[in-house]
Amino acid sequence: MTTKLPAPLIESLQARFGNRLSLGESTRLQHGRDESVHPPQLPAAVVMAESNEDVIEVLSLCQQHQTPVIPYGVGSSVEGHVLAPRGGISLDLSGMNRILAIHAEDGDATVQAGVTRKQLNDALKGTGLFFPIDPGADATLGGMAATRASGTNAVRYGTMKDNVLATTTVLAGGRVMRTGGRARKSSAGYDLTRLLVGSEGTLGVMTELTVRLYPIPEAISAAVCTFPSSEAAVQTVIQTIQLGVPVARIELLDALSLSAINRFSKTTLTEAPTLFFEFHGSPAGVEEQAQIVQAIADELGGANFEWATRPEDRSRLWQARHDAYFACLQLKPGCRCFPTDVCVPISRLAECIAETAADIAQVSIPIALFGHVGDGNFHLVVLVDTDNPKEMDEAAWISERVVERAIAMEGTCTGEHGIGLGKRKYLVREHGETAVDAMRAIKAALDPDNLLNPGKVLPDTH
Amino acid sequence: MTTKLPAPLIESLQARFGNRLSLGESTRLQHGRDESVHPPQLPAAVVMAESNEDVIEVLSLCQQHQTPVIPYGVGSSVEGHVLAPRGGISLDLSGMNRILAIHAEDGDATVQAGVTRKQLNDALKGTGLFFPIDPGADATLGGMAATRASGTNAVRYGTMKDNVLATTTVLAGGRVMRTGGRARKSSAGYDLTRLLVGSEGTLGVMTELTVRLYPIPEAISAAVCTFPSSEAAVQTVIQTIQLGVPVARIELLDALSLSAINRFSKTTLTEAPTLFFEFHGSPAGVEEQAQIVQAIADELGGANFEWATRPEDRSRLWQARHDAYFACLQLKPGCRCFPTDVCVPISRLAECIAETAADIAQVSIPIALFGHVGDGNFHLVVLVDTDNPKEMDEAAWISERVVERAIAMEGTCTGEHGIGLGKRKYLVREHGETAVDAMRAIKAALDPDNLLNPGKVLPDTH
Repeated sequence: MTTKLPAPLIESLQARFGNRLSLGESTRLQHGRDESVHPPQLPAAVVMAESNEDVIEVLSLCQQHQTPVIPYGVGSSVEGHVLAPRGGISLDLSGMNRILAIHAEDGDATVQAGVTRKQLNDALKGTGLFFPIDPGADATLGGMAATRASGTNAVRYGTMKDNVLATTTVLAGGRVMRTGGRARKSSAGYDLTRLLVGSEGTLGVMTELTVRLYPIPEAISAAVCTFPSSEAAVQTVIQTIQLGVPVARIELLDALSLSAINRFSKTTLTEAPTLFFEFHGSPAGVEEQAQIVQAIADELGGANFEWATRPEDRSRLWQARHDAYFACLQLKPGCRCFPTDVCVPISRLAECIAETAADIAQVSIPIALFGHVGDGNFHLVVLVDTDNPKEMDEAAWISERVVERAIAMEGTCTGEHGIGLGKRKYLVREHGETAVDAMRAIKAALDPDNLLNPGKVLPDTH
Repeated sequence: MTTKLPAPLIESLQARFGNRLSLGESTRLQHGRDESVHPPQLPAAVVMAESNEDVIEVLSLCQQHQTPVIPYGVGSSVEGHVLAPRGGISLDLSGMNRILAIHAEDGDATVQAGVTRKQLNDALKGTGLFFPIDPGADATLGGMAATRASGTNAVRYGTMKDNVLATTTVLAGGRVMRTGGRARKSSAGYDLTRLLVGSEGTLGVMTELTVRLYPIPEAISAAVCTFPSSEAAVQTVIQTIQLGVPVARIELLDALSLSAINRFSKTTLTEAPTLFFEFHGSPAGVEEQAQIVQAIADELGGANFEWATRPEDRSRLWQARHDAYFACLQLKPGCRCFPTDVCVPISRLAECIAETAADIAQVSIPIALFGHVGDGNFHLVVLVDTDNPKEMDEAAWISERVVERAIAMEGTCTGEHGIGLGKRKYLVREHGETAVDAMRAIKAALDPDNLLNPGKVLPDTH
């Protein structure tokens, strides 16, 4: 359903935005779908914003005309965040892509929300600094903040929660606020920045972000190691984390992922559960870390331990990890991936993965498993033909089972993807009615007309 | 002003709490003042809570009788947080001091809010883990969470914002919610945990906390070094942080602090700006860190660089830092300390301290300076006779100047103490009207009758 926009709103938007307003089907379709299995839901219009003033104008007009607004970055989210179940305007921030300031001496940068992580890292060349958060896709920093993204480096550098210092945010109706600041810590009032991070565009539209940067490590080394079982691989992860080894990345691919990679890349990698490591530090420090991890892996039956320090050798070792998602998609041409994204306390990770493997054995669809296991976070690549009800049912069953299991293990239904449309039904199960009511109260306080990305995050009340 | 409690409320409280309800002056005075210059403001009664159910009952009764509730830990805060400007009940949580679970394998512990940091660390003996946040006082973890406390280790381990994973919180009226969880990361809904951390008891009463623990480092080394000027000391800090040396602590004391310590402890330390370092890591790692820092210090005129690895030698080196606050108080017997607590981006720290030193030269009262300079955070120990209006005026002038300066440098009016009563006037200056209005809206949403620690954090509206 695409609710039509009021004519006076269209006129005002046309007058202000000219050809930066799109009413055409193809642009609306592009903005009304994401990378997941959710069927598209089109906005009534798309506005390409280029400045804070543009965002203020759209939010002001949309309040006047009681029209929903859905912030949009590059559309790489996977839980239906950018879909338009209630129509309205998709507010595309990808044109707000200026880097406003790099404070190398303080290790922070201020960017517009449409800057992508690769763009920021390109701009940092020569400063000796980098921005570590890497969710895979070259997402916008605004989108990453909105979904509280993390990815492979989070085990060392934290998630967007830990790395957004400040925002400029336009509230419903068009008022602008600054939240947070550039000081490394503050006890001055409620932490609005952390409230916005992960709010998925439902509390305000973040237009500028100040993010933390880190010195590029003096030395980086990478390692890869195969294991006789997922259990042995996961135990290696658990012991590494429990010993406090400051690994920068620690990633698991299961045997099916390796098999998919061999087919996709014509390689002959061992088709067994495999851990990928990266270590950051001084030359002596990374060597020390690698030795500790190798000793742990050896005791647990790890084999083919390879490590590398030169950039080209590290890239070669990690290539399989980088190819994993696309290689898995090729296992079933034309399929889509049903998103799963649980995270559990690390002590429960082996059990959670083993029980999940038993479920996987019961369904017909191919399902690979990989993840950011240093955080206790993993994904299933559940490959489905969205037109096949049996496959969709199997995928939904697997997803439901793994979420239930994670919550029962004191974990979460989503480690890094967010709630969007797809995980709303789990919010009460995970947090309880009272906490979700508190979230609803906050939403009503900051967006009383429910115009900002309505229908997302919070489950409908009945 | 102590507003009297309604008689039916007193009866209900007496029936429920017996001698855990205090109406006597001395207990009320003890709960109506803090460590700072704020004149006492007494609650009408004090209730000693021992369980979640006790807290639920008090919040339920207080809603019924529209009576304020002020959570209380050990009273070590310094911005008037625990004072009772509108009377009501001081809810003392220090009896909620059970450690509920230590999950050594996941590096977290769940405790009642009245557990102090030393109590937790004692309970962790034998696990190989510790809780790093150390604000100086042996505060309760609930109080530390409420004020978003940090202290000496924050440069390495973060603040309470980074180390509270989950809470059990009783909302106004008595509903209980769980926020957060034990997974290391989650994108599931609004970050209520981070909203509560730093909310100073104005949004809910945290009764249980799950906090992060860290492996005790294999090696710890300490170092001390004196400098020809504060500027040289601060430049050493800046370069250390900018190089990404993972120092665990890096503290500055000024010459007056050293002089106070020599008088207090009968020592003969060099009365010059002094940096105190602590390094955590592997034996090789801490040696490497100390060498890098010594090289930086050498170039900046650092002298008397001493370092130590054995616990007793480290304690001896750090003794002066630990004694600093009490030694400074002895500079002016009978005085109190007017709290200051600014934090600026590290690139502005030298300038901020130099300009502040010029202000200090203009007043008659003794003012020492020390701080957690690795974060850009420092305190002035402004010693005043609270009965002397000239001294209080001078202190207020110094405080105002340093706050204005920090905010102008994109810093904050409080790095770790919180807003309480004392810093409310700076909240709009630091965050702007729109952000403070958003905070007010959140407060009204979660505590519509304004019963939870009323009159704190948010400035009065006129």
